[in-house]
Amino acid sequence: MASPTPQAIVIGSGSGGLTVAIGLSRIGRSAILVEDHHVGGDCTNVGCIPSKSLLHHSADGTLPPAEALSQVRASRTALRDHETELVKTGTERLDFRVGRGRLLSPGRVEITAPDGSTEIVEAPNVVVATGSQPRSLEIPGLPSEMLLTNNNLFELGTAPEHLAIIGGGPIGVEMATAFRRMGSQVTLVEFLPQILTQLLPEPAAILHRSLEAMGVRIEVAAKATAFEAATGTLLVEPVDGANPVAPISSVDAVLVSVGRVPNSKDLGLEVLDVAMDKSGRIVIDAKGRTNVAGLWACGDVTDRGGTTHAAGAWGRRILRAMVSGPLPMPDVPPIPAAVFGDPEAAWIGEQPVEVPSDVRRITVETSDIDRSYTDQAGEGIVIVDVRRLTGKILGATIVGPRAGELIGTVSLSMKTDVPFHKWYGTVWPYPTYSDGLSRAVDAYIAEALPSVHKDALRWALGRAKSLIKR
Amino acid sequence: MASPTPQAIVIGSGSGGLTVAIGLSRIGRSAILVEDHHVGGDCTNVGCIPSKSLLHHSADGTLPPAEALSQVRASRTALRDHETELVKTGTERLDFRVGRGRLLSPGRVEITAPDGSTEIVEAPNVVVATGSQPRSLEIPGLPSEMLLTNNNLFELGTAPEHLAIIGGGPIGVEMATAFRRMGSQVTLVEFLPQILTQLLPEPAAILHRSLEAMGVRIEVAAKATAFEAATGTLLVEPVDGANPVAPISSVDAVLVSVGRVPNSKDLGLEVLDVAMDKSGRIVIDAKGRTNVAGLWACGDVTDRGGTTHAAGAWGRRILRAMVSGPLPMPDVPPIPAAVFGDPEAAWIGEQPVEVPSDVRRITVETSDIDRSYTDQAGEGIVIVDVRRLTGKILGATIVGPRAGELIGTVSLSMKTDVPFHKWYGTVWPYPTYSDGLSRAVDAYIAEALPSVHKDALRWALGRAKSLIKR
Repeated sequence: MASPTPQAIVIGSGSGGLTVAIGLSRIGRSAILVEDHHVGGDCTNVGCIPSKSLLHHSADGTLPPAEALSQVRASRTALRDHETELVKTGTERLDFRVGRGRLLSPGRVEITAPDGSTEIVEAPNVVVATGSQPRSLEIPGLPSEMLLTNNNLFELGTAPEHLAIIGGGPIGVEMATAFRRMGSQVTLVEFLPQILTQLLPEPAAILHRSLEAMGVRIEVAAKATAFEAATGTLLVEPVDGANPVAPISSVDAVLVSVGRVPNSKDLGLEVLDVAMDKSGRIVIDAKGRTNVAGLWACGDVTDRGGTTHAAGAWGRRILRAMVSGPLPMPDVPPIPAAVFGDPEAAWIGEQPVEVPSDVRRITVETSDIDRSYTDQAGEGIVIVDVRRLTGKILGATIVGPRAGELIGTVSLSMKTDVPFHKWYGTVWPYPTYSDGLSRAVDAYIAEALPSVHKDALRWALGRAKSLIKR
Repeated sequence: MASPTPQAIVIGSGSGGLTVAIGLSRIGRSAILVEDHHVGGDCTNVGCIPSKSLLHHSADGTLPPAEALSQVRASRTALRDHETELVKTGTERLDFRVGRGRLLSPGRVEITAPDGSTEIVEAPNVVVATGSQPRSLEIPGLPSEMLLTNNNLFELGTAPEHLAIIGGGPIGVEMATAFRRMGSQVTLVEFLPQILTQLLPEPAAILHRSLEAMGVRIEVAAKATAFEAATGTLLVEPVDGANPVAPISSVDAVLVSVGRVPNSKDLGLEVLDVAMDKSGRIVIDAKGRTNVAGLWACGDVTDRGGTTHAAGAWGRRILRAMVSGPLPMPDVPPIPAAVFGDPEAAWIGEQPVEVPSDVRRITVETSDIDRSYTDQAGEGIVIVDVRRLTGKILGATIVGPRAGELIGTVSLSMKTDVPFHKWYGTVWPYPTYSDGLSRAVDAYIAEALPSVHKDALRWALGRAKSLIKR
């Protein structure tokens, strides 16, 4: 099927790998795509797609849990089938191989098929896009059939009576939300003093309070130490002198979501001396290149991965770099992230807990914007970090309904270098959640002006805008 | 209460009037605010707030219609009370008067209190912000107690059995959505061949199909001619040779939403020769000034109004112009609009049905984006008009979930003069409805590149991006 000299061998068919392989085929180059499990990677099979589908069904509330989970699997499988069909028959320039890829030397990959047979393929470029897997956690006494990760969670026949979740990151928060909505008792245990440690304390606290208001028990600064199978009791100890934690009883399933481990082993990378960070993630440059000529990487297996859209964005960069050679690349765009809890949370850029002296942090509460009022929505917040003097947006966090869409406006603005003060005067439709953005820029202008000493400048900018809030 | 020389007399306390009056008081100026009905204008009392609240309750579905309507009134009244308190006691620089304002001469306003007593007040500036009212429609035979407009709709004790709606604009579409969700039979009659005539045909057709799928009967190119009260039958005739329309039977309430009429009469404007357009709307310039010195206007009563956020934006402009005098004003920003149906529709700028030759129109379907897939959402579309060669965004229409937020990104981009090609490379979180924006810019780049003749430029821009879609 493939032409004799494929442009690249791509190992892994998740968001990053598919972007490169399908992209190459669409611009007239040929590629070999190697996948040892399901096409679509974690996102399609055990990540974004089934989790967002479960969040949807649990919010909708019309299906009983067992049917909701069954629907989740059906829609997941349909999408996987579609993507599998796409790589198998979408274009003759894409040569799809089921098997495990392993680098023998630069440009040489051995593919081991499911029947154990091997074949060696060659190309000037190899792209490693093998993703990641759940970090494992030892809980003595926990029967293996009660141990869940995102890999087997969506295979549940129905919602557990009492789901304990270890790890309060995005997966933990989203699944606590979904299963609590479906009627499960849910207890969330987080090792650190805060859930969603990616977020600043106050946005994380909003999600914390929201989960508790839903009836989720949350234990922070706590670690699960053992499980008593006879009584279904998860024993939890405080971390670093925190208060004692009562045992969590009548647990019938434990979801472990304590981070991800890159799939960088058994790929032959060590033999080629591919540079990795201390977590085993492949180090890439701004073009997606590793330290080995002709070897590229993208997605979770790298030090720049972490989400489906990040993997896709890096896949695009690799594609561009591969075909445009030594030409300069545009800057790496800021890459946002989101947690689809209730409410949503989204963030982008850098927002250290301690605000640097050359940064102005704008914080506005959005619980009382008019759309929240008509929709009976709960707490919300918008936090924007802006470089003093230049107005450059450095980062933002948004919590509230539709935050995952609102962060896109910030992402575009950062990517196109629009400073925050230029937002002033933009009109958003009423009543929308975008009012939170409008408030943030109003607050920025109002706070910024008094620091300007020249009255003339202040006047020219329009004194009115410093003082009016909708 | 007010200082002896107020900066302005503001007639009308809706979005526009409140912005000017409260804004003046916040920057240390005094103002007289005159209101002859409820504080908050149509938006708070009979517009955005109760309609969005009813849309929320009807989507939520937990309250029976009578309770939902009762809740809508309660939240409306609470907000009105809050706003009334704000203008009455918020600041001593704001002198709030209940009564009807009428211009006697430039800078002189007669206020007629509810008890009939009159008083004359003076100020160098007068701002007319009196809003609009529903355009009336004569339907012979229709008992007055069955005739609804947005003014009395939210006073209904419960949902009608069969609500006929005359007029398929934003109000008609939103209320058809809300009452159909609450179980009413709903028939929508539109005089023109298309509902939502503000929209291009295809976006409007998506809302049309969606309403029909909900069970709303829609008759376009049709006019209601009479009502037979004995049988509750609304007689409808085709317009301009359209097919005959079957009578609409068992109707127990008729909502008329066929446009708005500016409240520009009985204000003394004729005496001052204030320029108006042929619809009676006050003509204003880029600062919000009328043709009479010292007389300003904003909101629905002007030729630049139409929505709450437009009135607010023009109120801000007036405020700025009033305090900054002859200094130049920033350009009038593009003002978006939205209909909060199911799905939402939002639009901004100019998008003529016939695409001018110097404009490229990008149209992408969004029904199959991944978030729509996981959320089981229906049809969607993104249409962006871009000036050839410059890439300037001229207008956009978005239909789909959260469209009211997504249009904000376009609004900011237009306001800050970011051309559409600079969007390319922006990363949006996955899976969000923002994927529709991402697709649109991908399609734009893909379509635009072949028109570039220089291979070198094409190469430098990165050939890959012309061909890849997520």
